[in-house]
Formats: sequence, structure tokens, C-alpha cells
Amino acid sequence: MMRGVQVSLLIAIFAIVLPALGPVAAQDEQCELSRNLRREIQRYQPVVDSIFERIVSGEFAGKTYESLLDFTDRFGPRITGSKQLEDAIDYAVQEMINDGLENVHTEDALVPHWERGREWAQLVEPFRKNLPMLGLGRAVGTPAEGLMAEVIAVESFEEFESFTPEQVQGKIVVFAPAWVGYGPTGRYRHESASVAARKGAVAVLVRSMTPFSIGTPHTGTLRYDPDVRRIPAAAITVEDAMLLLRKFRRGDRMVVHLKMDAVNLEPTISRNTIGELQGTTFRNTSVVVVSGHMDSWDVGTGAADDAGGVLISWKAVAFLKAMGLRPRRTIRAIGWTAEEQGLEGVSVYERQHAADEKEEFNVFFESDSGTFEPTGLDFSGNQAARCIFVEISKLMRGFEQFTYTDGVVGSDIGNWVGRGFPGVSLRNKNENYFWYHHTEGDTIELEDPKALDKSTALWAATAYVIADLSIDIPKDIVSYGSEE
Amino acid sequence: MMRGVQVSLLIAIFAIVLPALGPVAAQDEQCELSRNLRREIQRYQPVVDSIFERIVSGEFAGKTYESLLDFTDRFGPRITGSKQLEDAIDYAVQEMINDGLENVHTEDALVPHWERGREWAQLVEPFRKNLPMLGLGRAVGTPAEGLMAEVIAVESFEEFESFTPEQVQGKIVVFAPAWVGYGPTGRYRHESASVAARKGAVAVLVRSMTPFSIGTPHTGTLRYDPDVRRIPAAAITVEDAMLLLRKFRRGDRMVVHLKMDAVNLEPTISRNTIGELQGTTFRNTSVVVVSGHMDSWDVGTGAADDAGGVLISWKAVAFLKAMGLRPRRTIRAIGWTAEEQGLEGVSVYERQHAADEKEEFNVFFESDSGTFEPTGLDFSGNQAARCIFVEISKLMRGFEQFTYTDGVVGSDIGNWVGRGFPGVSLRNKNENYFWYHHTEGDTIELEDPKALDKSTALWAATAYVIADLSIDIPKDIVSYGSEE
Repeated sequence: MMRGVQVSLLIAIFAIVLPALGPVAAQDEQCELSRNLRREIQRYQPVVDSIFERIVSGEFAGKTYESLLDFTDRFGPRITGSKQLEDAIDYAVQEMINDGLENVHTEDALVPHWERGREWAQLVEPFRKNLPMLGLGRAVGTPAEGLMAEVIAVESFEEFESFTPEQVQGKIVVFAPAWVGYGPTGRYRHESASVAARKGAVAVLVRSMTPFSIGTPHTGTLRYDPDVRRIPAAAITVEDAMLLLRKFRRGDRMVVHLKMDAVNLEPTISRNTIGELQGTTFRNTSVVVVSGHMDSWDVGTGAADDAGGVLISWKAVAFLKAMGLRPRRTIRAIGWTAEEQGLEGVSVYERQHAADEKEEFNVFFESDSGTFEPTGLDFSGNQAARCIFVEISKLMRGFEQFTYTDGVVGSDIGNWVGRGFPGVSLRNKNENYFWYHHTEGDTIELEDPKALDKSTALWAATAYVIADLSIDIPKDIVSYGSEE
Repeated sequence: MMRGVQVSLLIAIFAIVLPALGPVAAQDEQCELSRNLRREIQRYQPVVDSIFERIVSGEFAGKTYESLLDFTDRFGPRITGSKQLEDAIDYAVQEMINDGLENVHTEDALVPHWERGREWAQLVEPFRKNLPMLGLGRAVGTPAEGLMAEVIAVESFEEFESFTPEQVQGKIVVFAPAWVGYGPTGRYRHESASVAARKGAVAVLVRSMTPFSIGTPHTGTLRYDPDVRRIPAAAITVEDAMLLLRKFRRGDRMVVHLKMDAVNLEPTISRNTIGELQGTTFRNTSVVVVSGHMDSWDVGTGAADDAGGVLISWKAVAFLKAMGLRPRRTIRAIGWTAEEQGLEGVSVYERQHAADEKEEFNVFFESDSGTFEPTGLDFSGNQAARCIFVEISKLMRGFEQFTYTDGVVGSDIGNWVGRGFPGVSLRNKNENYFWYHHTEGDTIELEDPKALDKSTALWAATAYVIADLSIDIPKDIVSYGSEE
């Protein structure tokens, strides 16, 4: 996921959308649901209990983990543009069919194709030290022999302002911002290359986006401003970033040798992967989408980011089907492509479905912040939607009250949610999520079978109730074009 | 440190030494110290309290950390054979002199010289995945273009026994032992290359020695058996080792491309670094040694392993001197060289000092398992020594009762201790020590100023009392030659 971009994007969008959403009241405000609707929701308690029982301790227990293990072991990392991502999509299509999902198909999306290639960085003066690194997605490479340059190190963009172009010209700039959170600190990964290039830097090295490290670099995308030179950019470890910052501040002259074979190739066709449990009453309207993203970075095996989100979505649908629970509306599981490359897969899908989106979609679910022990759901929507979510949340025994998040839900679904569609994200005990995020450590080792069962059950039960209610979840939508 | 080798070595030695040590009684056994000696020890309480007060909250507070930060930032990783290790030794000599240490000098030692060079590993079939790795110390390299071979993966030597030479011939063998502890699991790092080469393997990849990983490889030495072919050997991450093991077990054909430019160069001259607080009564006899090792691996900056051990030893002596506390016996701070290469620095020192060792040395201190929050000391020695240690430990307020360890103390000092010399190691809250051990994550980020102050104070106070007592610490020594 890349919530950093998303948050700032959403804040911008939200400012526009706010008037259309109506009054945003405090979460504990009294809801005036009709007695009939409240009773209707309450009547789902037995089916919700049964869904939980069968997924968490019945015949489906352990199945989500089993499939996640199989999926990540079989295809490994699934970066956009790789054969293994497309192989994984082919496999998912086949397995969704085997699981009884309906209308299983893919929808093409033209997406970026970046390849890392061989890469390394080394401090060569005043002493030699390998600098474990990961080039940032979309970054350009260095010349074949690498580039060798003196280092400037700063903690912030503000500090960098004090440097003149003469001082920066020809240098490698190290940005070592303190970890505040993925949103605010993420700016440095996204923006450092262009900020430094404006003053003539030849490359940037950015402190990895994490509160904790064991010499672990974290990759992720950057954004090049269109009007400045594109320079190579990589993440280095927290430890090395702080070392270089301290040394620079005490006046040590440092030289780094950086080698990156990264290339941006022609955009390529990838696919969003779709399978459904079709509704008894509505088929292609008022759809409840449950989703995660199929692609990952090219490090680790993308188990937490985001095979887990894909699997709980796909298995929620599969298990409902196997239980013979067919709601009035279609529940559509989607595995987005190219999320890590800047939400590229969903963007294509969104445009392709824009014409009738108000009719086609009811609620969007997305899980892309881990599938650890779930604690509840985050949700977003207008006041009327919120009252329904609150009532539904009471059916989910053992979870905290669901949390209202003011339009900031999900990564892939963020644009819809920002424009007023109801949205739901999985809340889970992901306090250490960023330790592993975009690293070689994002693997099946992080995942727990029981936590996955609970996540799938919560996902399935909530989606089922929403898809089966007598009414759609209310929404006030800003049309697709209006935020441009 | 490389306690793994040491432990097995010590067990072997201990078996021989045991009769000479006399009866080994339970720790809580009543000690029959003479009333005079007990009173003499008790009289050190005010000076011990003063040492703690001045180092932990007085004029020396924070100084150990400050020097450790300076030392690791200035020289970075200090692998044996590197210019930066020798630069660090030169600097330590100068700084010890500045700190008022006496008889500051170095003693040469011919030590191994291994260089890592460029290296990488990649799974190329059935999918592509970078395998973060660190070649093992002393390992030979691959051909320049690397070597590409099919993979066999096993969890244990026992499991490997079931493979025939025909099955192993030409393969890369992955050893993925479960983490039990550094001693038992460390065997796999040391022995795998030769075990696999005996059946014709072309290289080995060993699961990193750690209970916890964020995609972090851990280096360390291996041992080649003299009678088998030397094949390249590297540590891979826990995550990747488990991935390869699972895939192999379900029958996936895997191919790995391994490239290592590692070379074993001619042995080189390094130096053990020595500085003293000379005794009022005894100068070159009955010396109390306090020590750590100056060299580190070529990853991270070796802050915990073992600049911390060197610094608390050196600063303990410096602060005692600055406090005007000169004991009867000399306290000798030693920074060993080439510990990571197989205790090579101390081995030379030991041989050079063997002739008069019984007279020259009283007690050996070594800190090489972290300088986190100290909890006490481990000590080793005969029954009479133990009773004195127990009495001294009562002076150290706020620490747990010191722990008797049956001859297994230290890494560099292990050979002396195994032969009957009294030995002392720092016990500290190092539960997570192996998360960072021999990785890029072993840096100043792990260190805490207050914990270092307490470590230095405990080290200084204990060494001072031992060095100043009216009697030597009793010992029953097996002479140097007898364990061969």
C-alpha cells in the first residue's frame, strides 16, 4: 500500500467533497435508524454467528492461511511487469473457479513496468562500508559503472533549504527524516529526488520508512516532478542514514559509490482479477466490492502487502458460496494490479466503470494494512451510512466498535471513498506493520492462521449483511470528473 | 563473538580440566571465607558506592556512550585485515594515552585476512527472487560469473544423511535448521560447507543464526575440514531458508545463481591493544585483565559486538585512574584483535604470555555478549574463588547475585578460563542480542548511555576490588600444553 500518497490525495479531495457529504457528526452521536431497519439488521445475528463459527473453528478453519502460504510460496514476489505476477493472476483465476466463484475473469490495465536490476551502494570515504539499499520504484538507474560523489546529509526539507545550488551541485544527498508516520515521513521517499535534483544533486539516498530496523532497507515508489531532471534514488537503512547524517554534521567528508541498473520499460498489460458471488436480486448493480492487491514489491513475497488482503477477500466470497449463503446483491472479490506502482490498476478499472458507477457500486471493502489479529473495521460514508455500519458492527461479537474515519479508508479504494462512496477497511493489530513493509521480511512468516480466519470471517459476515440488506447503503457522490 | 565454537571447545576442555578444579558445589553452598577476608571485602563498600555514583550519575555519566559513538562513527566496521581496524587501533592507543592509561602499547599478532568482495544470490527458477545474503567468513568465492545450480534443502544434518552423493553432486545445499540457540544451531554455520562438500555439493546456503528476522542475513565464520574441497558458503535470511525448504519438500525444482568474490589473502599483522592502571604493589604479576575485542565483522559498525566491550573495559580503567583509585595489582585493559576470525588475536597473546601465565594473571574479565542494561556478572573459578566472588558481588547494590557458570565464561578468555583461571563476564539484558548479531543492524542505535554507564561502573568496581584485595583469587591451573 502507499497510504502516504493516498492520504494527501484524499485530504485534497475531501476538502472538495466535504459539503456534499453533509454534516459530519461525532462517532457516538445517536443514530435515528428506523425501528424496522434496526430489527432487520438484528435478525442477521444467527447467520453472522454461523459464518464466524464455520470459518474460525469449523470446516474452513486454517484454509485462508493454507491458500496464502500456497500462493506466496508458488509465485514469490509479484512486481508489476513480472511474469510471476501474471502467472499468479492466471493461477488465481483458476483457483477462484475451483472455489466456485462466479463470473471469474480479468480486466486489462496498462500499467508501468519498472525493473530494479542489479544495485548496490557503498561508502568509500572516509571508510568503506556497504550500504544495504533498495532502489525506489520508478527510479532511473546510474551509469553502468555507477556514480561516485560526495555526500550532503540533512534531516528535513527545511534543513535542505539552507543549502545553495553550488553546495548541492554534483552531490549525493542523504535525507534522514525522523519517523513520524507513513504519511508525513513518506513525503521524503516520494519527493526527495526532485527536491534534490532542483539544486543539481546527482542522486538521493533516503532513510527507510520504518520505526524499527535490523539493517533493513524498505523500497517504495517515488514521484518525479515533470520539470526536473530524474536522478537515481534509493532507500538506505535507518542505521546508515543516521550514521551519514551524524558524520556530515561533524564535518566528515564522505564519498558514496552508487550503482543501480534500474530501468523504466514500456508500460505493460496487467489485469485486475475478479470473481463473484452473484446476487439473487441484483447482479451488476449495487455491488459490494471486497478487495486487496495482487501485485507486490520485488522483495519478500508480499504476504502482508497484500496477498493477505486478496486472500481474505477471495476466500470470504468462496466460503459464503460454500455455505450456501447467497445475498440479494453481488459480492465481487477483486485483486487489483499495480497498486504499488501508484494505484495504477484500480485507476484503469475506475475509469472503465465510471459511467454507471453510482448504480454499479454499493460499498467498497479493501484490506491493505495487514491481516494480523483483526480488531474491527474502519468505515467511511455519510451520516446515514454510518448509522447502518454502527448497527451492523454490533453483530460482530468480540470486536471493538467499528471506527469512523472521515473518508480516509483504503488505498486502492481511496478515490471512490474520497468521492463519497461508503468504504470499509480491516483494522488489525498491525502496530509492527511498518517494520516489514516493502522489505525482504514481508513473508508468510508474519502470518497467523487464526488471525487470518478471523479476518476472513469478519470480512465475509460484514459483506454478507451489507449485500443482503433490503436497502442500499446511502451515499452522496461527487461525480468522477468533478475533482479534477 | 563466536560462543558456538567456544562452547564446544570449552566442553571438550572442561572434561579434561574437571578433576583439577576440585569439587563443584551448588551455587548456594555455604562459603567458609575467613572472617578477616570477609571484613576486608566489606570495607570496600564505600569505594564501590563512590565508583558507581561518579560513573552513573557523576562526572563520568554518559562518557562511555560518547566514546563508543565517536569510535564507531569514526571507523565503521572493523574487519580483520582492513585499514579501518588498524586505524581504529592507532586511534585507541592515542585515546588511551589521552585518558591517562599507562604502559599503553600494542602487541602484534599474525591473523587471517579474508575479504568479502561483491556478492549476491538469486533464485532464478521456478521464479526470480533476490536472496539477501552474507558470505561466511573464510569462505572461498565462486567463479567470476558465479555458479548456478539446482537446490537441495534440509533442516538438519540428520536429514542430509539420507541423501546419496549422486543426489548431492553438483547441487547447492540449503541448511535451514530451527533456531535452538547459538551453540547448537551455530554448528550449521561452521560445519555445513564441509558436510555438503563431502557429498559433492558445489555451495551451501545456511539459514541465518537468529530467532528473529526482518529479511536480515547474519554473517560469521565457518570451518573447513582439511580433507574436503572448500566450497562457497553464505548465510541467507530465515525467511528465504524456510521458503526454499518448503518448496524443496513439496518437490519444486529450484535453481540458484550465487556470486561471491570472497578471497582468503595472506595472513596479516594486526595488534592486540593494551593500556593499564599499574598496581602499587604488583605491576607485571597478578594482573587483572578487563577486555573486549576491537575487530568486528564488515557489516554494521560492531557497536554491540564488540566496541561496547572494549569501551567499558578501557573506560573502567580510565575512570579509576581519574578518580585516583590505584589498586595493589595492575588492571590491564585489552582490546583483542581478530576475535571474529576465530579468536586469533587472543591465541597469539596467550602463547606469547604462556611461560609465566600463572604468575602474570590473576583474573580475566571479558564483555562480548552486549553492553545492554547490566544485571550482574557471570563468573567461573574454583570453589575458593567462588566464595570470594560471591562476597564481592554483595558490594554491587542493585544487581542480581552473580552467577556461577561452570567454566563457560567469555569468548576470547575462554581458553584461560577453561584451564582454571578465574573469569568474569558481563551479564546484561541481551535477550535480543542475536537479532542484530553479525548484521548490518549492529550499530550505535542499539546502545543506551545509561546502560553503558552501569556496565562500566560494575566492571570498574569489581575489577578494582579484585585488584586491590590482600590476596590473589585462588586458581588451579592446567598448564597450557596439557589440553592439546
